[in-house]
Amino acid sequence: MMSEIANDSIINVGNYNVYVDFDCIEYLDAYLNEHYKNHEKLVIVDENTEKYCLPLIDQSSSSLSKAEIVQVESGEHNKSLEIASSIWETLISYKVSRDAILINLGGGVIGDLGGFVASTYKRGIPFINVPTTLLSQVDASVGGKVGINFGSHKNSIGVFREPQAVFISTQFLETLEKRHFLSGLVELCKHGLIKDRDLWENIRDQFTFKNLEEEQLIHWIRQSVEIKHQVVSQDFEDKAQRRLLNFGHTIGHAIESASLVADFRPLLHGEAVAIGIICESYLSYKNLGLDISSIEDMIAFFSKNFDYYPLINHYDFVLEMIHNDKKNVGIRNNFTLLKGIGDAEINVNCSEEDILESLEFYDRAFAH
Amino acid sequence: MMSEIANDSIINVGNYNVYVDFDCIEYLDAYLNEHYKNHEKLVIVDENTEKYCLPLIDQSSSSLSKAEIVQVESGEHNKSLEIASSIWETLISYKVSRDAILINLGGGVIGDLGGFVASTYKRGIPFINVPTTLLSQVDASVGGKVGINFGSHKNSIGVFREPQAVFISTQFLETLEKRHFLSGLVELCKHGLIKDRDLWENIRDQFTFKNLEEEQLIHWIRQSVEIKHQVVSQDFEDKAQRRLLNFGHTIGHAIESASLVADFRPLLHGEAVAIGIICESYLSYKNLGLDISSIEDMIAFFSKNFDYYPLINHYDFVLEMIHNDKKNVGIRNNFTLLKGIGDAEINVNCSEEDILESLEFYDRAFAH
Repeated sequence: MMSEIANDSIINVGNYNVYVDFDCIEYLDAYLNEHYKNHEKLVIVDENTEKYCLPLIDQSSSSLSKAEIVQVESGEHNKSLEIASSIWETLISYKVSRDAILINLGGGVIGDLGGFVASTYKRGIPFINVPTTLLSQVDASVGGKVGINFGSHKNSIGVFREPQAVFISTQFLETLEKRHFLSGLVELCKHGLIKDRDLWENIRDQFTFKNLEEEQLIHWIRQSVEIKHQVVSQDFEDKAQRRLLNFGHTIGHAIESASLVADFRPLLHGEAVAIGIICESYLSYKNLGLDISSIEDMIAFFSKNFDYYPLINHYDFVLEMIHNDKKNVGIRNNFTLLKGIGDAEINVNCSEEDILESLEFYDRAFAH
Repeated sequence: MMSEIANDSIINVGNYNVYVDFDCIEYLDAYLNEHYKNHEKLVIVDENTEKYCLPLIDQSSSSLSKAEIVQVESGEHNKSLEIASSIWETLISYKVSRDAILINLGGGVIGDLGGFVASTYKRGIPFINVPTTLLSQVDASVGGKVGINFGSHKNSIGVFREPQAVFISTQFLETLEKRHFLSGLVELCKHGLIKDRDLWENIRDQFTFKNLEEEQLIHWIRQSVEIKHQVVSQDFEDKAQRRLLNFGHTIGHAIESASLVADFRPLLHGEAVAIGIICESYLSYKNLGLDISSIEDMIAFFSKNFDYYPLINHYDFVLEMIHNDKKNVGIRNNFTLLKGIGDAEINVNCSEEDILESLEFYDRAFAH
């Protein structure tokens, strides 16, 4: 049955396949019928994916007609040990066996949480990811990181374990708010910036939210998944090369945290990373000689798609947080920067003066 | 430094070594100095191993002089999510990095719990097992099973993850109560019965608790570790061949549970398995033609070393539990039985009549 699938929809990422197409639901159905026909199936959803995504699956999937639906509440704060416990309890009360398979239908929270629960229930049952946000489609579908937050410590409990398969349907993105879509787009841009000049230039020149061509988007996601696979396959357990993916994220994370503390409606992950990319491009210019015109390109693109978010009141917070991170993890050289577009370098050390300058640079460049 | 270690002390079990000797503490010290010299170290202990075993390590180990000691309360009921959480909290509060290494100093509970915490903290930090009971030395040092109980469900949350190394010092056994020692001995016997006639006959003919020769015991443990490795290496994720290790355990587990419910001072795991071995040997005779004289040997040996535990009031409980297990896990043929000594077969189906007869057989054979 799987032979119906268009060849260029399939990306092999080592031990499993990622399927990317407008409608992958039929592929999912065929896959389950081929590999898990008589196995118990459970679908983890949140209230949003239950409402908007599950009906699309139900329509075309005979294999999931008898699946148990397990609903958890949406939101990063539910990626917790309490919620993981409640899912374990559900699995135990349903007497779910080691032959069962879990299907994670949702964004990053559902994928991380459902993947962690599956990886630890009876020492591991198989799971499949059906990511429904652009961010989770390009970011969480490769890499094998599953886990939960512990108190205020993000992702501090978890394991490395890969899904059996990932099904990326861009049709789910039609129900996604513009803000969330753009947040995911930033990771696509980042993958281009660190590894693939063409991908970045393509997005830069052709992306418009209103007139986005489906085929174009599918192509970008496929390239992005392949880039992430290239990077991760060299360093599955996250020791060195994987830091390439951190471009924009050292400052981006600090800004995300600052916004979480300060703002009633905090920045989304990608929105913060977009700012981090501008700041760290400035650091790339200072430390690795990245050319100015590349930075101007990024400023033009991001200022067209994202509102200006003044950093001035957050300078101290951001510097402090980066300083503490360095101390805590014992890493001095913690920036991933660009030598050129598509050409990144890990473990670059930056001075506090340069970091501060990079924040000021963003404020000057965007405030007008 | 590791070259000081006697060659026959080292058993390679695939990805790591198990060291077995009277005093392995020096090996541990040498190992840590060679592989983890400047890494943060934490030792998980319970109140017993802190009192009786940690001082032996402190005396001869320079590598652990600065280690953090994390104490948890002993007992199977502490192999829980609550205690795992409290250790995660401790690790986070100490800002333990992914470079750190955890040393589990204790019996099966400490190994399972500490291994699970290490496997899930920051997606996995390395750990070393220093098992201090005979049961954990022969049983838990190979196989990669780590985990916790969840409510009343034993080992229902966990992962497969191997330690970096295991150090088995028989000197720790000198502080072990006779009852606990004998409980561990049953697993040694079982390894012989399923895979190695010589090992079983050796123990049968030469074991006395009072005049046990150290060299003899070390030899038995080494053989036992090698047998378990042979079985596990063919089936790491516990799908089929690993069921060889279940001999004596289907009925043994049910008797252990019955005793937990009924008795003020319940049977130890090995004590229940000893009874299970007699019952399942009877089933082996009925279903696979195991010869009577082999069973008489076992009865002679176990009745010399273990008190009689009347089963008569537990017949219904044991039958019910085995029946439910079959239903729940969807397995019909769930016995591992012996065709001969050292020659086991998995997936044998037994009738309820036979199971009941096997319980009666034990009662008749031991009650005198």
